[in-house]
Amino acid sequence: FVRMSLLQGFLIVLLGISVRASPALGVEGHSSVPECASCALAKLPKDTSSSPPAMVEAVKKHILNMLHLKERPNITQAVPRAALLNAIKKLHVGRVGEDGNVEIEDDSYRRLEATEMIEQTSEIITFAESVGSSQGLLHFQISKEGNDLSVVEQANIWLFLRLSKSNRSRAKVTIRIHQKHRGSNGQDIESVISEKAVDTRRSGWHTLPVSSSVQHLLDGGHTSLDIRISCSQCQENGVTPVLVEKEEKEQSHRPFLMILVRQSDDHPHRRKKRGLECDGKISICCKKQFYVNFKDIGWNDWIIAPSGYHANYCEGECPSHIAGTSGSSLSFHSTVINHYRIRGYSPFASIKSCCVPTKLRAMSMLYYDDEQNIVKKDISSMTVEECGCS
Amino acid sequence: FVRMSLLQGFLIVLLGISVRASPALGVEGHSSVPECASCALAKLPKDTSSSPPAMVEAVKKHILNMLHLKERPNITQAVPRAALLNAIKKLHVGRVGEDGNVEIEDDSYRRLEATEMIEQTSEIITFAESVGSSQGLLHFQISKEGNDLSVVEQANIWLFLRLSKSNRSRAKVTIRIHQKHRGSNGQDIESVISEKAVDTRRSGWHTLPVSSSVQHLLDGGHTSLDIRISCSQCQENGVTPVLVEKEEKEQSHRPFLMILVRQSDDHPHRRKKRGLECDGKISICCKKQFYVNFKDIGWNDWIIAPSGYHANYCEGECPSHIAGTSGSSLSFHSTVINHYRIRGYSPFASIKSCCVPTKLRAMSMLYYDDEQNIVKKDISSMTVEECGCS
Repeated sequence: FVRMSLLQGFLIVLLGISVRASPALGVEGHSSVPECASCALAKLPKDTSSSPPAMVEAVKKHILNMLHLKERPNITQAVPRAALLNAIKKLHVGRVGEDGNVEIEDDSYRRLEATEMIEQTSEIITFAESVGSSQGLLHFQISKEGNDLSVVEQANIWLFLRLSKSNRSRAKVTIRIHQKHRGSNGQDIESVISEKAVDTRRSGWHTLPVSSSVQHLLDGGHTSLDIRISCSQCQENGVTPVLVEKEEKEQSHRPFLMILVRQSDDHPHRRKKRGLECDGKISICCKKQFYVNFKDIGWNDWIIAPSGYHANYCEGECPSHIAGTSGSSLSFHSTVINHYRIRGYSPFASIKSCCVPTKLRAMSMLYYDDEQNIVKKDISSMTVEECGCS
Repeated sequence: FVRMSLLQGFLIVLLGISVRASPALGVEGHSSVPECASCALAKLPKDTSSSPPAMVEAVKKHILNMLHLKERPNITQAVPRAALLNAIKKLHVGRVGEDGNVEIEDDSYRRLEATEMIEQTSEIITFAESVGSSQGLLHFQISKEGNDLSVVEQANIWLFLRLSKSNRSRAKVTIRIHQKHRGSNGQDIESVISEKAVDTRRSGWHTLPVSSSVQHLLDGGHTSLDIRISCSQCQENGVTPVLVEKEEKEQSHRPFLMILVRQSDDHPHRRKKRGLECDGKISICCKKQFYVNFKDIGWNDWIIAPSGYHANYCEGECPSHIAGTSGSSLSFHSTVINHYRIRGYSPFASIKSCCVPTKLRAMSMLYYDDEQNIVKKDISSMTVEECGCS
């Protein structure tokens, strides 16, 4: 009786184990279902071949989707290569590179790099403070925006020269900017860092370039710029450089410093802030590189350029200490979710942070649409550039 | 004894109900935890006020993060507005709009609209097919890329004129392109759609514009362009327009048609493809608009421009029939996940598709960094433009 009960019990237990009919990829027997797709991607068996068939199939589908094609074009009798090369050369669409492959001109990848460069550039406008107007001394307290990681693209001091009304003739003066620095003997030396010959009939603004001085200042970790303005022949000509005035009427003519700074990409301290790349050893959120050569998948007959596709994707875990910290590239959508999660609002606190793309790149493609047609297209959001925790 | 047991039982049951210490937002008593943050966002109680305090707090944190500021700048004695306006005018950083607010010039929003315009433009190169070289007839079978939704930005026919070696003098010829169309009386009329006077000493390529003819053709839903090339005085001058030749040596000089098409934004059929905007009635994945006026939150003292921020986010459900169908703006990351999900691979099949941003926009900001400094910055991925199911 006891044995029968044990057997029955055993059978019941066996029935209790639900066996999944769908193909499981190394997750059988694993009791908890990963809640993030990117965690599941990380657990996929690593194929020893360089291009796992399922992945290649996904790449093909992705490219066709992005090009709005139902299936790959069938090219049996293409236009002669000579005609093709001639056309793309004349149209400035592409050219033949050193390796014999066609390269696309004005690639959207390069164009977007330019846009990103613009986005990394800030314009700082610093107004002068007075430290002794009678001696022509000006002080500029530069924003923290300019720091030792900044590259100064441009820096100019804007000065307003007021001509007295009585003077109707042409005024020729020379404005000089002087800055003190410590000499090799330990003594303070004052030198001219910028000068400009001005030839004018009326009051107006003038700019004096000071790029190298500002770059030197920021490199040294300083943010105060102290200068002295001098002007030869100003008094004789009835010209006055407007410094920091107390009177109301001159408020709009206060001198200012304009600096165009770019955050330097090459600085060693900067590299830390980029997303991680998967190297096979780390298990946290990283970008998995996956390059597909069109020749390898038999697609180089209809895709003229580029020669392959970076089919990157994101995998890995987002433990709570790095959840929601993918830097400033989070959109407001992610910020608002994290805001509620951190404050313990239900159910946000229990929703996992997942490894997702945080930066995407566009890609240009040149391909045969059919036997007589070649199309050049720029496709946005084509390649994953960085991954982070949502 | 029974009464005591009942009471004890009741107390135990009471203790058994775990009361959460964290604030729950309308989800108490709900047995299943939504797996997508965007579903949870949709269930948040809709505040009757236009700016729910928690949301505003999230907006403030987001803006400070994106500007790399720890806290909002404290401006008590700012630079006089006259000086500010003068500086931004001189630097072409901004100007005062009709409403008295400062508008940023070269706003990254507008610059990225230009980039998107470029990305919606395709370049089609169609090579000519022969239908009767002796009569100068050419046939162009235009790619499906050009359709009735396309706007033709430019269309040119490229023709190679070969000068016979014996002729060393200047050749003056006129090339004409003729096209047949149905006249009002039902008869076919041939008219000149383009012509060019050519004055040259050597063989070379020449372009003839045919934009309006190609636009008219595509608008009518046609994709075949049949034309006839004629050349007055070609024979006398020893000039031959190269048509579709069988000989090897002329393969690179086959005529071709270049069309620059842009997908029309204004076409009614196009609107369907955009992401949905939440209107309070739909429960599926949509973009929730949420505009924050800086004056309302007391931030207009340090943020000069713009006047407010579109703090959009994504909410709503992604039922299985629209999971993974957020159009072609999916990155390869989403494609590969969907690929495995559709094929029933475990555990992808059980991972939900969530409503996430599929398109982000940059934003330019002009603000006081401290009392003497004004900064102009372009910040990428600042605003959610479209939402879709991952």
